Amino acid sequence: MKSHTLLMPLDMHLHLRDGVMLETVAPLTSYSFSGAVVMPNLVPPITTKEAVMDYKKRIYAALGRVEEADDLLMADDFFEPYMTLFYQNYDRSFLEEVVDEIAAIKLYPAGITTNSEGGVSTFDLETMRATLEAMGDLKIPLCVHGETDGFVMDREAEFMSIYEMLASNFPKLKIIMEHITTQAAVEMLDKYPNLYATVTLHHLLMTLDDVAGGMLQPHLFCKPIAKRPEDREALLHVVLNAHPKVMFGSDSAPHPQHAKESCGCAAGVFTAPIALQVLCELFDAYGKLDNLQQFISDNAQSIYGICPEFKEVVLVESPFEVPEHYGNVVPMYAGETLAWSISDVE
Amino acid sequence: MKSHTLLMPLDMHLHLRDGVMLETVAPLTSYSFSGAVVMPNLVPPITTKEAVMDYKKRIYAALGRVEEADDLLMADDFFEPYMTLFYQNYDRSFLEEVVDEIAAIKLYPAGITTNSEGGVSTFDLETMRATLEAMGDLKIPLCVHGETDGFVMDREAEFMSIYEMLASNFPKLKIIMEHITTQAAVEMLDKYPNLYATVTLHHLLMTLDDVAGGMLQPHLFCKPIAKRPEDREALLHVVLNAHPKVMFGSDSAPHPQHAKESCGCAAGVFTAPIALQVLCELFDAYGKLDNLQQFISDNAQSIYGICPEFKEVVLVESPFEVPEHYGNVVPMYAGETLAWSISDVE
Repeated sequence: MKSHTLLMPLDMHLHLRDGVMLETVAPLTSYSFSGAVVMPNLVPPITTKEAVMDYKKRIYAALGRVEEADDLLMADDFFEPYMTLFYQNYDRSFLEEVVDEIAAIKLYPAGITTNSEGGVSTFDLETMRATLEAMGDLKIPLCVHGETDGFVMDREAEFMSIYEMLASNFPKLKIIMEHITTQAAVEMLDKYPNLYATVTLHHLLMTLDDVAGGMLQPHLFCKPIAKRPEDREALLHVVLNAHPKVMFGSDSAPHPQHAKESCGCAAGVFTAPIALQVLCELFDAYGKLDNLQQFISDNAQSIYGICPEFKEVVLVESPFEVPEHYGNVVPMYAGETLAWSISDVE
Repeated sequence: MKSHTLLMPLDMHLHLRDGVMLETVAPLTSYSFSGAVVMPNLVPPITTKEAVMDYKKRIYAALGRVEEADDLLMADDFFEPYMTLFYQNYDRSFLEEVVDEIAAIKLYPAGITTNSEGGVSTFDLETMRATLEAMGDLKIPLCVHGETDGFVMDREAEFMSIYEMLASNFPKLKIIMEHITTQAAVEMLDKYPNLYATVTLHHLLMTLDDVAGGMLQPHLFCKPIAKRPEDREALLHVVLNAHPKVMFGSDSAPHPQHAKESCGCAAGVFTAPIALQVLCELFDAYGKLDNLQQFISDNAQSIYGICPEFKEVVLVESPFEVPEHYGNVVPMYAGETLAWSISDVE
């Protein structure tokens, strides 16, 4: 039976939510990943050191680590939640105080996606300069949801000029273009040394055809929306060939089933429990399995400068039946059978 | 109070379905329209004279016209269902026999939309020639769902070459480009004398942004899918300026609520009961109310050569609260208040 071993898999863009949902989804990622960059778009968003520490405690608690929850300094052997702040214009002194507790700061344009109402309304360089320079000095990466409020198929491409402005004005700042979906964003990677990207599983697999080409598929509806076939090809090209500036970030975004299957469906695809299996199948189908390690961990370690504890995940080409639900969340490929499964985690 | 009178409104593209759904929706159109071109994509599709006559009987029955249902030759004072056949390659002798019972033949590419599995798989001129020439001779218009099986945003534009092939090879045949959604289709109108078009209400009002730009809106999901802002502008331009080759065809397509709000939502927007009210508001907003009569009836009468019985519909600028449901169907603008309402029908 074909098998493949991944070392220290990392999910560099993850939504763990809070409360009951956090308890449902956190163990599904911690089981197979060494760590994940946890998004700060809670209600209210994470904007203080205290909120970061409290959220980390709740994540530990959701993982059943009660002792750890009381002692954040204790090493976590198996899963590290890399915490983030919700971007606002922060003082340098605050950033110095919080730098050891966070892996990145996540910038949302105001109102562009779930719980982003408190985001940035205008990209005014002078207003943002002090914060972004301090982040560059302190080596705090800026993660960006890069979409304008334009026509849905153009939003990411239209945002490229803002990436160019940020990248050229703040050369010391590492800027991560999150969940890129277009050829336009792929082309930016080789244009600015300080631009990086995460790519989701679902944007590697689908185009708008899969969401709205046949029947409408609410469980595949996400932001940014899946784009054109040539965009997907561009993503596949850099991912399968292990472009060193490209990392896996699932953007796994759970919503309760009723919020997906209703009149006015929320954006987000839930992929956490099936991501590694499907990535193995995808890379294997293209004969590129040896490149998966870079995409799933090595590139992220270099870009973020992180050293996760040792973890080995063995995948085998053996069927995995995806559950219809995890709690009240419907995963991608619900009820279908995947070609690869996780056989061992050490 | 502002008022506007429409004479003999016609809906040149309507889905009445069958059974209980037919009973729910038929009276909603017959109330305010003089007639409607009724789509033949039932299961099985309408392909025989007997099926045409039987369906017409069922439509009359759904309108409570029991006597008429027993005597199809009796004139219908208030609402005329203009019947259609589902396109197949038909013999001339069959077409001669059925010509007086139908207003048009509707061509679906195989599998392109609801109940279109028996449609045309390849557009082979020589195979289709006898049928299309006979239709031209007998003055039976060909209505076409013009989409390829390509990427969802390109399907209509890609179909233009097939329209060009049909229009240039069969100059005597009137070809109706149904429910056009793109600038590309609008441009075809002035290129071939025998190409015409219907435009829906919903494609005048929305772009893909309204379907999938914010939350996903299953009740606005339809085929062809709503396109880009510049496409909508092109449609508005010809419709508001009463282009003589453009007719109103609602493509009002009811589905039960559960088939819309589920995992795998059916395509179709249900607009029959609100179309005239919203068209008045739209034309009035652009100062073009005087052009609505051509779009809603006069152009269709010329193109199809039909003379509906007299009917006068008076609309007033007075609020209309759209019901949440008609039977188990959710209409466009469910629960919202429209600016115009129907005050009188004679």
